[in-house]
Amino acid sequence: MHAKTNPLATHSPAMLRGLCRAGQFTGQTAGLGQGHVQANLMILPAADAFDFLLFCQRNPRACPLIEVLEAGQFEPRCAPGADIRRDLPGYRVFEHGVLLREVANISDLWRDDLVTFLIGCSFSFESALIGAGIRLRHVDSGSNVAMFKTDIACESAGRFHGNLVVSMRPVKSRDITRAVEISGRFPQVHGAPVHIGHPGAIGIGDLALPDFGDAIALHDDELPVFWACGVTPQNVVQTSRIPFCISHSPGRMFVTDLHNS
Amino acid sequence: MHAKTNPLATHSPAMLRGLCRAGQFTGQTAGLGQGHVQANLMILPAADAFDFLLFCQRNPRACPLIEVLEAGQFEPRCAPGADIRRDLPGYRVFEHGVLLREVANISDLWRDDLVTFLIGCSFSFESALIGAGIRLRHVDSGSNVAMFKTDIACESAGRFHGNLVVSMRPVKSRDITRAVEISGRFPQVHGAPVHIGHPGAIGIGDLALPDFGDAIALHDDELPVFWACGVTPQNVVQTSRIPFCISHSPGRMFVTDLHNS
Repeated sequence: MHAKTNPLATHSPAMLRGLCRAGQFTGQTAGLGQGHVQANLMILPAADAFDFLLFCQRNPRACPLIEVLEAGQFEPRCAPGADIRRDLPGYRVFEHGVLLREVANISDLWRDDLVTFLIGCSFSFESALIGAGIRLRHVDSGSNVAMFKTDIACESAGRFHGNLVVSMRPVKSRDITRAVEISGRFPQVHGAPVHIGHPGAIGIGDLALPDFGDAIALHDDELPVFWACGVTPQNVVQTSRIPFCISHSPGRMFVTDLHNS
Repeated sequence: MHAKTNPLATHSPAMLRGLCRAGQFTGQTAGLGQGHVQANLMILPAADAFDFLLFCQRNPRACPLIEVLEAGQFEPRCAPGADIRRDLPGYRVFEHGVLLREVANISDLWRDDLVTFLIGCSFSFESALIGAGIRLRHVDSGSNVAMFKTDIACESAGRFHGNLVVSMRPVKSRDITRAVEISGRFPQVHGAPVHIGHPGAIGIGDLALPDFGDAIALHDDELPVFWACGVTPQNVVQTSRIPFCISHSPGRMFVTDLHNS
């Protein structure tokens, strides 16, 4: 079994961002970007920025911060020349906790009081797992990772409250110890698993019905391994009915110039 | 040579805080608190809280966050029952970057919009150094650690900008490798040294004239080792002429219930 070859796999981060900016790429970014760090996006008005920054500080596994831009700025230090308003494959716009629409760029929505948060993404440790010989079948099959809402409450901060979202990867029993050790070395991208083995124990009813991404069946010699997921902020802004925010579309990340190593 | 015995050395954190609250202890906290984490304090109005939280996020060595309280709250999670307004040995009040006065409690200055930041302190890794057989002469002699302003610029955030403050400890040449390794294991309390050996290279003119704390002479077999210091925020609010803030008095920390281990 071979991984599907993505024709964009050899593009640099800057080339990928350029395609997004030109409206020529709206797909998922898993496996793209030549091993550079990919980031979840959350954009909030300055009035909510302190509470959300505090939420991230209190929930570092779900929301490991890569960079926070100052109000109105849209060129991050982790990707000089980039424009956060146009260089992702897709965005989601929320008002009062309701997903209003998905769009390809947010230039027309930009305001000088908007604060951009870039949050670590588990795509970054996946390459380390693969490098250690741990197969990740959603990568092999070119599908999106399966993500689930849990009943694990995050630490709240100001008006931000809600439950943790996790990503699930089937891991062979014999590989689980190493998967824990390896991912634990990446605290900036969610770190070690939050749960192994019993989906029901963290409020997940049916592994065949992920809340985001694509379902993946377990094989007999595998256990489900759950990691904190950068989609958590999207769940939290919905639960908390935050007046206005913009996120990336799940699986469509911002590709930075930072190296995973 | 034996360390001076402090009659408060056997007091629990709660007992020490109670003495502060009763106005019966206004001294330095180095070596006190039975190995519990001690914290630097910075209190700012909500209007400046996002910028300062971002400053801490961008300067984690100087400002490793232990806890951030929500606006108006004064009982931290790291010390249930404590009152941040009364339970430190001493406070400093700044207006527009000028130190106005030092006081024993700040109850009369409290406002509902004040946000409290607790920042890690190198006292926490000192016990690990001592445990590894590395002598710290300022601890042996019961004096305060020597602290210096440097010419190393912090990453600015909003209106907060300024230079790093470091603490200096003389370390025997043969112990320096271990001192780096051991302190590097404590990223929540400043981590590994920022400089070793040449004070002039980081803008320090004379080791005999510390900006804060007590001078300590180098012995022939020692090098000066410099760690990022939690007094940095006090330097930054002065440089940045922040309208209003309250800090701890240098060396007079908040003793939490958290264990250093």
